Amino acid sequence: MTSNPVVAIVGATGAVGQTMLQVLAEKNFPLKKLVPFASKRSAGKKIEYKGQKIEVVALEKGCFEGIDIALFSAGGSVSEKYAPQAASEGAVVVDNTAAFRYHDDIPLVVPECNRADIFKHNGIIANPNCSTIQLLVALKPLHEAFTLKRMIVSTYQAVSGAGATAIQEMLDNTKAILNGENFENKKFAHQIAFNALPQIDKFMEGGWTKEEMKMVWETHKILGDENIGVTSTCVRIPVTSGHSESVYAEFDRQIEISEVRNLWENASGIKVMDDPANSVYPLASKAVGTNPVYVGRLRKDHVCENAINFWCVADNLRKGAALNAVQIAECLVEGK
Amino acid sequence: MTSNPVVAIVGATGAVGQTMLQVLAEKNFPLKKLVPFASKRSAGKKIEYKGQKIEVVALEKGCFEGIDIALFSAGGSVSEKYAPQAASEGAVVVDNTAAFRYHDDIPLVVPECNRADIFKHNGIIANPNCSTIQLLVALKPLHEAFTLKRMIVSTYQAVSGAGATAIQEMLDNTKAILNGENFENKKFAHQIAFNALPQIDKFMEGGWTKEEMKMVWETHKILGDENIGVTSTCVRIPVTSGHSESVYAEFDRQIEISEVRNLWENASGIKVMDDPANSVYPLASKAVGTNPVYVGRLRKDHVCENAINFWCVADNLRKGAALNAVQIAECLVEGK
Repeated sequence: MTSNPVVAIVGATGAVGQTMLQVLAEKNFPLKKLVPFASKRSAGKKIEYKGQKIEVVALEKGCFEGIDIALFSAGGSVSEKYAPQAASEGAVVVDNTAAFRYHDDIPLVVPECNRADIFKHNGIIANPNCSTIQLLVALKPLHEAFTLKRMIVSTYQAVSGAGATAIQEMLDNTKAILNGENFENKKFAHQIAFNALPQIDKFMEGGWTKEEMKMVWETHKILGDENIGVTSTCVRIPVTSGHSESVYAEFDRQIEISEVRNLWENASGIKVMDDPANSVYPLASKAVGTNPVYVGRLRKDHVCENAINFWCVADNLRKGAALNAVQIAECLVEGK
Repeated sequence: MTSNPVVAIVGATGAVGQTMLQVLAEKNFPLKKLVPFASKRSAGKKIEYKGQKIEVVALEKGCFEGIDIALFSAGGSVSEKYAPQAASEGAVVVDNTAAFRYHDDIPLVVPECNRADIFKHNGIIANPNCSTIQLLVALKPLHEAFTLKRMIVSTYQAVSGAGATAIQEMLDNTKAILNGENFENKKFAHQIAFNALPQIDKFMEGGWTKEEMKMVWETHKILGDENIGVTSTCVRIPVTSGHSESVYAEFDRQIEISEVRNLWENASGIKVMDDPANSVYPLASKAVGTNPVYVGRLRKDHVCENAINFWCVADNLRKGAALNAVQIAECLVEGK
C-alpha cells in the first residue's frame, strides 16, 4: 500500500460517512485524494473535507480504478454489489456493513484486538458491529490477562445507529409527545421517544434478534475463541449518539479490581471514568464526538469471584463505525 | 381488621400518593373514610377521591387515632418519624419507603410472592423497592417450579421513581436540548434527557449503588433464600413512567421455554407479551397506567441450559409502589 493513498468513501452523505470525513480530517490522514461516492440520488451534491467542497460521484463500473482504499458505509446491499467490484478494480475495501462479516475468508477487525488479521485480506476487510467493537476494546486486555469465559451484556443503544432518519424520527416523536400531538413511527416499530425498545434488527431463531447474535458471532471471530459464552440483550433507548452497555464478565481465574483498572489504564483506546464519590462514570452525553471507549462502574461480582461488572460507553458513529474503519485504513498505510 | 376500614394516605399529594388514590378508587376499595395527610406545606390543599374533594391534614401527635390502615409514601424521614406513632396509635402501616424494609421483625411483602408474611406484622409492613417488585412477580412462579439460583439484571428505570420534580426536570431538560438552550440539572447528577445514567441512589461499598443492593437484600428477604445470587446494574433512562428490566435467570435444573410460558400464563399479576414476529414485547409506553407485570423476549440461554433471558416491564408508580401497597391493604381487610 502506498503511503499517500487515494481514499474513496461510499455513502459519504450518510451519518457514518460524514463522521468518516471528520475523523480523516482530525487525524490529518495522509491521503492523496478523497473521492466521495453516494447513491445516484445524492450524486452531484457537494461534501466538505478540510474546507474543500468535493462533488459526490455515483457508483458505476470502473469507478474504483485508481482508488487505493474504499471505506464503505452505504448499507448491506450496496456493499454486496460494489465491494467485490472495488476489490477487483484494485481497491482494498473496509466495509462497515454486515454483508461480509461472517465470511471465513474476510477478516473482521478491531485494531486494538486483532490488528494482524488486517493483512490476511483478499481485498475486503469487515468492520464489526458498533455494540461489539466497544465491548471488545474493553475486554481484550482482560481476556489476554485472565481468559474470558462468559459474558452477559445488556445494551442501551442510541438511535444514530439506525441512521440520520432515525435521529430525526426520535426528535420529531419527542416534540410531538411534549406538545400532546399524535405521531406515527416509521423507522422504529414503536414509539422511541421516552421509551425503551427491546428490539434492534430482525428476529431470528430462538427469539434472539440479529443484533444480539452479531455480538455472539463477532466476539467469537474477533477474539478467535468460540468457547466464550456470550449472552446479550440489545435495547434501543432515546439517546442521539453514544451506546452504553452493562457488562457482566467472568474469567478463568479470580481477579481483583485493581488488576483490571491497571490493565485498562495501560490499554490503547480505553479511558477509565470511575470515581463514584464524585458521580463520575461513563455517559453517552459526554462520549459523543470523542474517540475513546469509556469504562467505569467497575465492581467485583458478589456471587462469582472470577467475575466483574462494568459500564462501557462509546460514540457508536466513531469507535463503533467510522473511527474503527479509519484505524484499519491507517494500519493498511502503515503496513503493520 | 374491620371490613370497611378508615384509610389514611401519608404523602397524598406526591406522585405515589396520587396513584394510590387512583388505585383505591379503581378497585372500589371498601373504605369507610379516606384521610389524606401531607407535609405542613401541603396541608389545607384538597385532593380528589371519587369525585369528592377532601382536605389534606398535617401530621401531628394523635392524628392516627381512629385510622385502621395508613399507607405511607412521603419519604424515608417522614416514615421514620410517623410510622411508629401511627402503629402505636392503632393503625397498621404499609410503608412505601426504605425506612423499615431491612428490619428483621418487619415483613417486606409482594402479595404474589409472600402474602402470608403480611400477618406477621407488629404494626408496620414494608413495601419493597419498585425494581424488585416487578422482577420477583415474574420470577416467583419459576422459582417455585425450578428453584432460582442466580440472576443478573440490568434495569432501564423511569424518572417518576425519583418523584414529580424529577419528571419535570426531565421534560425541561429535553425541551432545553431541543431548543439548543443550556440547562442545569438539580435532581439528577447529570443530563437526564437523551442520556443513560448508571446511578440510582447513593454509592456504597464495592462501587455498588444502594438501588443495586436493594435488589439483593429484598430478593433474599421476600423469597426467604439468601443463597440466590443476585447481581444488578441500575440505570436511569429518559422515560416518564414504566421500568424495564433485562433479566438473565438461572435455575437448579434444565428448563424449557414452554414450561416458563405456561407458568407465567397461569400466574397472578403477570401478562405475557411475546410475539416477536409481530414486534410484540413489553414496552414502558404501553405499561404506564396499567397494573400487570409484563414479560416477553423470552429466550433459552445459549450457554447455560438451566437459564433463560427475558424482558420485564411494569408501571413503577403502580405495581412498583401504589398498587402493591393497596394490595397489601386488601389482604389485611380480607384477613388472608
